[in-house]
Formats: sequence, structure tokens, C-alpha cells
Amino acid sequence: MAMANGFASINNGVPDEESITAPLLHLRRSTSNNTSQIAIVGSNPCPIESLDYEIMENDVFKQDWRSRSKIQIFQYTSLKWCLCFLIGTAVGLIGFFNNLAIENIAGIKFVITSDKMLSNKYTQAFFIFAAANLGLTLFAVSITAFIAPETAGSGIPEVKAYLNGVDAPAIFSFRTLLIKIVGSIAAVSSSLNVGKAGPMVHTGACIAALTCQGGSKKYWLTWQWFRFFNNDRDRRDLVTCGSAAGIAAAFRAPVGGVLFALEEMASWWRSALLWRAFFSTAIVAILLRGLTDLCLSGKCGLFGTGGLIIYDVTSVNISYHLRDVPPVLLLGVLGGIAGSIYNFLLGKVLRLYTLINEKGTTYKILLACTISILTSCLLFGLPWFAPCHQCPPGATEPCPTIGRSGNYKKFQCQPGHYNELASLFFNTNDDAIKNLFSKDTDTEFHSLSVLIFFITCFILSILSYGIVAPVGLFIPVIVTGASYGRLVGLLIGSTSNLNHGLFAVLGAASLLGGTMRMTVSLCVILLELTNNLLLLPLIMLVLLISKTVADAFNANIYDQIMSFKGFPYLETHAEPYMRQLTVSDVVAGPLRVFNGVELVANIVHVLRTTGHNGFPVVDEPPVLYGLILRSHVITLLKKKCFLESPRLDVDAVDRFSASDFAKQGVGYQDRIEDVELTEDEMEMYVDLHPFTNSSPYTVVETMSLAKALTLFRGVGLRHLLVVPKTSERQPVVGILTRHDFMPQHILGLHPMLERSKWKRLRFKFPLWNKIF
Amino acid sequence: MAMANGFASINNGVPDEESITAPLLHLRRSTSNNTSQIAIVGSNPCPIESLDYEIMENDVFKQDWRSRSKIQIFQYTSLKWCLCFLIGTAVGLIGFFNNLAIENIAGIKFVITSDKMLSNKYTQAFFIFAAANLGLTLFAVSITAFIAPETAGSGIPEVKAYLNGVDAPAIFSFRTLLIKIVGSIAAVSSSLNVGKAGPMVHTGACIAALTCQGGSKKYWLTWQWFRFFNNDRDRRDLVTCGSAAGIAAAFRAPVGGVLFALEEMASWWRSALLWRAFFSTAIVAILLRGLTDLCLSGKCGLFGTGGLIIYDVTSVNISYHLRDVPPVLLLGVLGGIAGSIYNFLLGKVLRLYTLINEKGTTYKILLACTISILTSCLLFGLPWFAPCHQCPPGATEPCPTIGRSGNYKKFQCQPGHYNELASLFFNTNDDAIKNLFSKDTDTEFHSLSVLIFFITCFILSILSYGIVAPVGLFIPVIVTGASYGRLVGLLIGSTSNLNHGLFAVLGAASLLGGTMRMTVSLCVILLELTNNLLLLPLIMLVLLISKTVADAFNANIYDQIMSFKGFPYLETHAEPYMRQLTVSDVVAGPLRVFNGVELVANIVHVLRTTGHNGFPVVDEPPVLYGLILRSHVITLLKKKCFLESPRLDVDAVDRFSASDFAKQGVGYQDRIEDVELTEDEMEMYVDLHPFTNSSPYTVVETMSLAKALTLFRGVGLRHLLVVPKTSERQPVVGILTRHDFMPQHILGLHPMLERSKWKRLRFKFPLWNKIF
Repeated sequence: MAMANGFASINNGVPDEESITAPLLHLRRSTSNNTSQIAIVGSNPCPIESLDYEIMENDVFKQDWRSRSKIQIFQYTSLKWCLCFLIGTAVGLIGFFNNLAIENIAGIKFVITSDKMLSNKYTQAFFIFAAANLGLTLFAVSITAFIAPETAGSGIPEVKAYLNGVDAPAIFSFRTLLIKIVGSIAAVSSSLNVGKAGPMVHTGACIAALTCQGGSKKYWLTWQWFRFFNNDRDRRDLVTCGSAAGIAAAFRAPVGGVLFALEEMASWWRSALLWRAFFSTAIVAILLRGLTDLCLSGKCGLFGTGGLIIYDVTSVNISYHLRDVPPVLLLGVLGGIAGSIYNFLLGKVLRLYTLINEKGTTYKILLACTISILTSCLLFGLPWFAPCHQCPPGATEPCPTIGRSGNYKKFQCQPGHYNELASLFFNTNDDAIKNLFSKDTDTEFHSLSVLIFFITCFILSILSYGIVAPVGLFIPVIVTGASYGRLVGLLIGSTSNLNHGLFAVLGAASLLGGTMRMTVSLCVILLELTNNLLLLPLIMLVLLISKTVADAFNANIYDQIMSFKGFPYLETHAEPYMRQLTVSDVVAGPLRVFNGVELVANIVHVLRTTGHNGFPVVDEPPVLYGLILRSHVITLLKKKCFLESPRLDVDAVDRFSASDFAKQGVGYQDRIEDVELTEDEMEMYVDLHPFTNSSPYTVVETMSLAKALTLFRGVGLRHLLVVPKTSERQPVVGILTRHDFMPQHILGLHPMLERSKWKRLRFKFPLWNKIF
Repeated sequence: MAMANGFASINNGVPDEESITAPLLHLRRSTSNNTSQIAIVGSNPCPIESLDYEIMENDVFKQDWRSRSKIQIFQYTSLKWCLCFLIGTAVGLIGFFNNLAIENIAGIKFVITSDKMLSNKYTQAFFIFAAANLGLTLFAVSITAFIAPETAGSGIPEVKAYLNGVDAPAIFSFRTLLIKIVGSIAAVSSSLNVGKAGPMVHTGACIAALTCQGGSKKYWLTWQWFRFFNNDRDRRDLVTCGSAAGIAAAFRAPVGGVLFALEEMASWWRSALLWRAFFSTAIVAILLRGLTDLCLSGKCGLFGTGGLIIYDVTSVNISYHLRDVPPVLLLGVLGGIAGSIYNFLLGKVLRLYTLINEKGTTYKILLACTISILTSCLLFGLPWFAPCHQCPPGATEPCPTIGRSGNYKKFQCQPGHYNELASLFFNTNDDAIKNLFSKDTDTEFHSLSVLIFFITCFILSILSYGIVAPVGLFIPVIVTGASYGRLVGLLIGSTSNLNHGLFAVLGAASLLGGTMRMTVSLCVILLELTNNLLLLPLIMLVLLISKTVADAFNANIYDQIMSFKGFPYLETHAEPYMRQLTVSDVVAGPLRVFNGVELVANIVHVLRTTGHNGFPVVDEPPVLYGLILRSHVITLLKKKCFLESPRLDVDAVDRFSASDFAKQGVGYQDRIEDVELTEDEMEMYVDLHPFTNSSPYTVVETMSLAKALTLFRGVGLRHLLVVPKTSERQPVVGILTRHDFMPQHILGLHPMLERSKWKRLRFKFPLWNKIF
């Protein structure tokens, strides 16, 4: 197949439908093969290990299952709960200290700059501000580019792809975890318009993946109990819990975290998982609450009483009536359009940045520095255009605020006056959001200032995401959306009796809905942020509308990034044209089959010349015995339990234990090149029967692709055997893998479908694509 | 099979693994066959139609799919959204008027009784109170028993079973809907300790099922567009949305409703469904808000400003610390134990009541009347034992309250005094909950009173659920739990600085967690009820603990009721022993197979002598062609498109349209007895090929039952063909249906598993079972 271009060397030049590598599907259009589209997958391209939820029913595993005692089952269950507890605790602690670090670093920066400005040393203030930002950005980008390029970006697409069965290389290593945490702190503190929620999700997932790799010999944790977690299902369960805990820690939104994991991240969901994720986020919530209480006494430096980003808009009685609905509808529609434009532009910018980043580390760093300097200039420069306003006499807060937090920033104004733009620009994003969401501030901001802030945020957040550092999208979208909402509120003016803080919340909801396209989870996250349930009906309305509008134009931002990175993400829904194709229309390539008792030399030859991860095992007379995994065959070869003559090996099961075949750590795989065999051994035989999954799922060749996808996706398969309709021919005609369901693959084989009526309905703007 | 006892007449005496009837699995222990275990399924036993999410790939459907234009796809999508809108609107309106009616009827009753008591006519007051209650109960029970016995109970188990693929007879008819609404209003108004949330869920589901039956000729809606909804998937999707809307309307908890549908109701869940359910509940929320606003002006009689049950415990700053955690843990553990005892006792009482109700309608009515009189006596009598207290001087509400709502009831006390027990007993459940949840009332109630109230509620709610009327469990559990929580709060006293209203909320959470065993959805429902997000960590903690504790003893209440009613509910998880069995261990009974071109007489004979719903179609030489559904065969026979000689019928597809084979309404099925054929026709042939699903899912006979269940459950199948390992024998060895996965069936075939180590871990108390 033409697709396996860059990695043919792994497969010794033989085409293969399975060893899909991350940047591959997309790289067809790319020019160079040794550098990738996006930094995260570029530095370490290795085959992606696919998910497998199928119960492997070979004799060894059956034996193992039968020998499990009640105590072992109890061990397993209690350990799983302990791991959830551990994950919750670790993520909660990291989330808290992450925030503490950001608030303090950014805080000190703002305090020093403000002090200089108070003594009228404006140029000096600017240079300090810009230098601090540049230094922090440089640090974040350098550690990312040199140590762990796979940590660039938010990490949500990678984790989502992992939960769908695509293992991007090195996303869950200890190195990744460390760089993600440190890099994210530096990047967010550097006043770039980037978020920390995405990195927190990746951090949570990383912690979860690492805790359940205790069985792996690479880490010092080789406790016996961990052997139960050497399988896909448990690992993915825990990673789901980890990502839920991540959102819970980032937004202090435990229920929102669970729903986020459910709605956006997880591809397979079970009720038990809901409960477990809920447990992890409960731990996070309790921990955060306790630690924030500790900080109330002022021991946390500049962290103050803020306590993570909790925007308490509890104005006890918000009243709204039927006549407030039309402006809210308008807000939703416009937010949806803005969201889809945001996604479109972000995609284009990512494409451009990839071209730049591909040229080498120097270019990556230069790009990030440019963005940092641009950001510093805008943040420091734009407030000068805003006029100074007199402090309102009855303000509930001190005005102007000297220091870092607060609604009224003095900036360059005389005492007793404040600069409204500085209140937004010259603050951390969290504080800007807090200011925009705050009630009783309808007179503080004016439409021109908010417009300037909105446009700047919109552009900066698009420009900042693509740099090679651990940065997220959530917070930038919220701050942009909030300013958009305030703007709408200001323009509508007195025709609506909703206050502008409420408009800001609804604006944030609409832009989030327009870019992320979630519903329930965003709704709950926003409710938990604002702590006011009375907003619920309006937020629901806005989210529904903006998602519907935006869905008419393009896909959600994470799906877009995933497809851009070339992850073979398996959708739940079949594309309409899949009902027009049968399974045999997409199965291609020569099928490699093993005999039940096979010559070692044959096995080695097949393994060396193909990259397939599963092989049908066929007995004489031609009848399908089952399916054997590549990794299991390699284990067999390593153990060298060979037979002199071709016969059944009845006591083979006793020479192996299930742990010999346990799944390796994420991204790690045994290779056939590492197996060394003598000439004599090559002439011997192996009885594959005891190690073959004797009851693989099969479909008949006339089944439609859509129906096969239902099975493949519903059960969570890695291989699906295709059997012939009539039994006269060979007992198996092909293997379906994830790759065969990818639209790119199918449309490549059947190009006429591209123009058929069986495509999903969506508005298209070919002109736009030409311009950008 | 010995199981098909009561309904052998339908199958003409031939055993059958498929036509499972609702009360069947359980009736093995029952003595009589013509009366059923529980009223709801007893009056109208008819075969259950199972769910089928499989894409039927026969030539007719393929043709239909190919001919669909883009406009039709657009029609389908927009109609589906319109239906969601309709469902939301209808459920919102019904929920509101339901509440309005209950508040007014119960309100008038309490006002009249109070008036009599003010003029010291206590005996008269009691008789008015008791008579009103008796009358309302009698009305509710009579209409239920005589018109629609299937509406008895909460309806949640029936809807949950339906969403799992079990169609209990007549649960979604127009008659059911009407009786459910009217009966629930009467039952709740009659001061029985019963809830309205369960009936609201059933109402919502009913409305959803009825709206998408527009294509059915039984109803006046035969609009062409509705033909797209003649399939299982869409119907079940809408019923899920309906049940979410039901909870949203009952508790004014839109997000909680979605989560309830997700966590408790739905067996198959897709992301698109989340969005659609969210839309329905958003409509409900907006509608309720608007209607409640209308009532604020006082036009809704005694409905007042209450506005559904919204218990606003917004005490702006709840502070709790580490030392408050131990009492909360204790609360959770005890709540879990209490919940499992509740479930155990409720099961026993239901069993007893069934024996009584089986004796006839008179007994049903007598039973309900006894409960009503008992309830009236307790509610009116117990407050006399409580001492009168002086009204607190600084009370925020008028004390004593004359009328229906309020914290301080005068009852028999002198002016200026209140009776604390009357505040709880002599109120609607909603008001009692409101009083228990209210803050700043720590001194109002005393531990003895609360203890009396708790015990009475606990007993009454268990005794009331089993009567033949549309009554729910949610509210009784909340009120019982709230009193339990207050009691714990009172006993702990000043060692904790949590206020007692908060303890009541946590108590309600713990008992709900202990009986219903939900986590996220209960958490969100409680948050939406109490409107205070600061409670979140504590509620999460309590729910997790109480669920864990209770799960160690027995199953959740709805599952218990479902298994008691004999619904063959298909669990997601395989029982441990299912990994020890292969598929061929449970497939039994003679397999009936059709030839590709079959004699009409043969078909009629097979259909008349078996009740199977699917038949393998086999071609010569023995090769499996596919699977044909009973209903499709009957349609073919009705159309009489027969052939003179056994040959392929190439243009058969053109004589049929897909709508000929469309799924009938819920619970409705064509019967072979209604097909009349002449002798000549019996000697003719039918070509089954164009109507046969040519790509059914198959499993190999050596597959473990657990693995087959994963496929069966994961994809949502109704039939699963079992093929032989070697191809020498017949091409198909059996059909697996839902029934074959039922623990009762499997343990019946393999009794030794009952005592094996492959059973789920759970504490058992054989002694208890002997006593009760």
C-alpha cells in the first residue's frame, strides 16, 4: 500500500495494512518523510499499537483464568480502587501546585512591572515585562523541543486518540509528565494566551498510565499485584479516570471532569467506569478544597484567597424573562459562527507552523520567541490607547488596585483613575476572566475596549497554540468568548435586563460550544465555575445553538487536530457510503497465514517481511483454527520451545504462564529483529495451537462495511477476520484492521465515492480554502 | 424447555427459546399460570419483542437505502429534532400541571382539615382527612386496576427493561399514559408516602414512544415522514430522551435528568443521544422556568411561589473542615446499610403483596385502602405525642403557620406554639423535605421526633410502593433519608459544625445511594435540587461510600424489581462462570432451518409449531445464506407472492417496499394464525433470498459465553448464529438469543455452577431469608 511510505524500513519493504504510524495518513501530502507534520510525533516515529478489548481465548489464558482464586479477584478489585485513589491524589496535588506556581511566578512579574510603572519608569517596566515573558517562553520551548517534543500542544487529542486505540509514541513516559508540568507552568506564566487545562488532562492521563505500568520492568515497581493491569482495558479505564481528574483539578469541577471524560475523551464507556472516574474526581475535589483552605491563611504567597479559577458570580437572584431570549439566541448563533471560524483559522495556522517547525529546533524557538514578543508588545502597548476613567465612587473593591489582582488597574493613569484595558490585558487570563464574569461592573468596560480585547485575544490565542510547548486551548477560548459576550451585552445595552457579567458567561459558553462542540460537560463545567445553577437553562440554550450552527461548517477542534496529526481515529458512526461497500471491497493485500504446527523458518520469514500484528492459523483440511498475535509469536520464538518434528505439543501450556504474554508498556513492543535463532532452530517446528485465540470474531465477506464497523467499534477490536460466503475456498479471505475503516483509505480505493450522494451534509466554502 | 410453561398455547406446545414472556422466568416458582406475579404484567401476557440494533442487510432494505435522497435524510434529521422538541414541551407541560394539581388537591385537603382543627373539631378533622385520603387512593387504585393494571408501580423498571430490549406488554399505550398521569396525581395527593418522579419518567417515555408511532395505522398520525421511525434504534433513542425529560420535569433538574437516563436507564448510549437528551431537558427547563414565573403572580391557586420541589439551601458560605469528615463517613456507611435493608424489605413486601393482589381486583383495592387508612392514622395520630414548643422569637417565617406550607405547624397547640412532628407529618412530602433541608432550624426539631418520623417514613414507604397504583420511590427515599440525616446531625450535636439542614441533604444522598446505587446522576440531581455547588465534595463522598457498602449486600432496587418481574434484562458484564462455558454449552433445542427456496406448507408448519423469531436460511450444498425474521416471513405469506416451482424469484424486490417490513408499534406483532392460505397456495414456493439478512453476525461454537455476550450486548443483537468449528457438518448449529444469556437459564442447565467459585462476591444472610 502506498501509505506506508515513511516506515517501510521497519517492515523490510513489504506493504502492510496494520503498522500505521502516527503522522502517516497525513504525510502523503507532505514532502519529507523523516520529519513529521507536527513536532509531537515527529521525533520518535514508531508503530502504533492498537487497542484490543477482545477476550483472547487461547489455552494459556484460559488456564490462567481458571487458576485465579477469589483472593486474587479481590486483590485486583481493591488494587484498582487504590490506583484510582492514587491518581486522584496525585492529580489533585499537581493541579494545586501547578496553579500555585503560575500565580506566584506571574504575580511576581506583574508586581515588579507595576512597581516600575508607579515610579513612572515605563520603558524599564516594558523591558522587564517583555524579558520575563521571553525568558519563560524560551524555557518552556527549549525543554519541550530538546527533551520531549511529544509534549507540545494540549495533549487532549493524543489522550483521546489513545482511548480510541491509537498509541502515539512516548505520550505516557515519565519524561513527558515532567516536561508537561514544568513547561505548562512556564508557558502560562509567560503571559502567552494559552491555557493549562489541556496539559492538566494530559498530566492526569500520564499519571494514570504510569501508575498501572507497575508490572513493566522498566520501572522500579514490579509488584506482583500489578500483573493484573497488563491489559488494555484496565489501562484505558485508568487513563480515562486520569483525564477526568485532570479537568477536575484544572477547573475545580469534579462532575464536569467526569462528564468531559465521558463526552469528549472516552471511546468505550461502561457504567462501572463512571463510578470509578467519579471517585477519582471526588478525591481531587476534596483535596483541592482542603489545600485551598490552608492557603486562606495567606501562606501561599501571591496565591491569595483566589483559590484556582473559581469565578463566583453568585448574584443570588438572577431574573430573566422571555424577552431576554432573542439576544441570547443571537449570541449563540454568532458564537457558533465565530467558533467554526476559529477552528478553521487554527487549522490553517497549525499547518503553517508545522512547515516552520519542521525546519529544525532553531526555527521552533524563533517562532515561539516571535509570538512571545508580539504578545508582550500587545499586552503592554494596547492599554495606552484606552482613556483613563475616574474610579466609581461606590465600588466594592479598592480602586485603583495596586498589585496583581482586582478589577481596576491603575496602569499609566493618575491616582484615583483606572485603565479599563489594562484590567483585561495586564492580568493573568484567570483574572481577566474573573473580571469579565463579575457582576455590578456594567459601567466599568466600554464597547471599544472590549472589542479591542476580543480581537486581540482571538488572534493571539490562534497564533499561540501552535508553538512547541505544553499549552492548552480551554482558557484562551473562555477568555475570548467572555469578551465577545460582554461586547454583545454592551451593544444590546438596556434592551435586555441581563447583566453584562452574565452575558460574558454566555459568550464563553457559545464560543466553547462553537469550538469544542460538547454539550453536557461544558454546561456542567461552566456551572461549577460560576457556581450558579440558575443560569442553567440559558447556558444550555446557548450551547445547543452554537454547537448546531458550528457543526454545519466543520468538525470539532480536537478531531480536527487529530486528523491533522494523522491519528487513525475510529468514529462511532459509519460514513453513509460505508453502507454501499462490502467488506471485501476494502480488504486488500496478500494474506499471510500460519499452519497450526509451523516451521520456525517460515514464521521468522513472515514476521520479518510483514508488519501485520495478527495472523490467521489454519489447520488441514483447510479450516480456520484461530488468530495469533505477532507479539505472542515473538514470545514463543524467544522462549525457543521448539519441536523436532511437526506434531501437537500437548504440554506446551504448562511451560508458559499468562504473564509471559502480558501486554508491554504503552508504545513498547518486542521486535522480531531482537530474536536470535540458529540454523538448527530454524528447521524446527512450533505448535501454535495453545497460543492461538481459537474463537476470534469473524464476519462474512458480503457484509457491508458499516455493519462490520458496528462490530469492530462496538466490541473494541484490533483484528476482524473475514470469512468466505461459501466454504469451498480457503477458510479466511482477509483481516480487517482499524486502517481499513479510515475514510482516507476507503476513498483512496474508491475515488468515485468522493462525489457521490453518500457524503455527510456540511456547508463548504472552497473560496476560503483558496485564500488561506 | 420447561420454562415456557404458561404460554405453550401460543407456540402450539412446542418448546421455544425465544418467545419469552414477561412474568415467565420467575413464574417457575409460582403456582398458578394464568395469573402473574405482579399486576403490571399479569393482565395481558403476550410475547416480548426483543431489541434489534443489527443492520438488516437484505435486498429489500438495501434497495430502500440506495434510493434515499439527500432530502429524505434531511427530513429524517429535522423530524427527529422536532420530535425531541415536542417531547420536551409535552413532558414539561405535564410535569408542571401534574405538580399544580397535586399542590392544589393536597393543599385544599390540608386547608379544610386545618380549619376544622382551628375550631377544635378534631374528630371531624380526622374523618375529613382520612376520608379524603381514602377517596383519592380508591380513585387511583380503581382506575389502575380496572383500566390499566400495567401502570402500577413507578414504571422505571419497565422503561429500563424496554431500553434493554424487553417489551413489557402495553407499557406505552395512550391509555397507560392517561392513567399514569391521573393516577399519580391522585395517589400523591392522598398523602400516601409515594413519589411522583418514577411516574413522570414513565410518562415521558410513554409520550416519546407515542410520538414516534406516527406511522402506525392505529393512531391518526400516519404522516409519510414518520416511516423513518419504524425501527428500534430511533424509538429507543426517543424513549431515552423522554425519560431524561421526565426526571428533568420532576426535579427541575435538566442535567440530572440527562445523567439519570445515561447512568440508570439506557443500555446503549451514543454521544449523539447525549446531545439530543440534553436538548429535550433544556426545553423542559426553559418551559418550567417560564410557567413558574407565571405562577409567581399568584394565579395558580395553592401552588404559590414554591415552584416544583426546589429546596433552596443556598446558605452562601458553607464551611466544613477535615474534622467534619468522620461524621460524614459514618453517615455514608449507615446510609448504605439502611439502603440495602430497604431494598431487602421492599422485595419481601412486594412478594407478599403479589400474593394478595393475585387473588383479584377486590383484594387489590382492599390492600390499598388498608394502607391509606393506616397512613392517615399515623399522620394524624403521631403528632399528638409530640409536645408543643414555643415559637422561636427570631424566626424568619410566621410561626405558627396556618395553612399548608411552612416550617411551624400549629396543629393542636395553643397560639404562639408549634408542633414539630406536625411540621413533618402533616404536610406534603415536598414540604417535609423542604423543612428538613432548611437551614437555621437546628433548634426546631428534636431527636425523638425525628426518630419517630424516620421510622414511620421508612415503614410507610416500603408498605406503600406495592399497591396497584402509579407510585414512585424517589421522593419517599429522599424524605426518609433526609430525616435519617437530621437524626444523625442531632445525635452528633455540637461536635460537628455542619448545620442540620446540610446533614439532611447528606442523609438523603446516602439513602438514595444505598437504594438506587447511582453516583453522578444522583449527585447532580441533589445539587440541582439544593442549588448549592459547595456541597459537591461531601455529597460525592457520601454517595460513593453508601453505594459501595450497599453493593456488598444486594443489587439496586430497580434491578431487583426487574428480576422479580421476570424481565430478561441483559447485563453488560458477564457473570464470572460465563467464561467457563462455551456457546455450545447453552444452545439447546431443535434448530429449525429454511431452505433458500422453501415450500409454503413447510414455512407455515414451522411457524405454527415454533415461536422462534428468526430462522437460518440454508442453501444447497449446505451453506449458510443468512437469517430471516419471523415477522418478515409472515409479511411474505400475507402478500402471497408465491412461485409455482422452486426457482429464484429475481424481481421479488420490486414487488415490496421497505415499509412493508417496517417494525410494528411496541408490543404489536403479526401472527401466523391470522394468515389464511388455500390448499393450492400451500403447495407453492417462496424465494426467501431477497428477504433474508445475508450477513448475520456469527460466532464459532467454541467461543466462551462471556465473549459471545460481549458481541451480543455490545452490538445490540436479537439473534446470534452459532457456526460449527469444522465445516463438515451442517453450516449452523444453533441460535443464541437473549434468553440463553440469562443466569437462571444457564444455572438451570449447569446446576453445579451454583456452588462454584465463579460466582460474584456478595455477603449473604441465609438466616434473614428464613425469618422473612
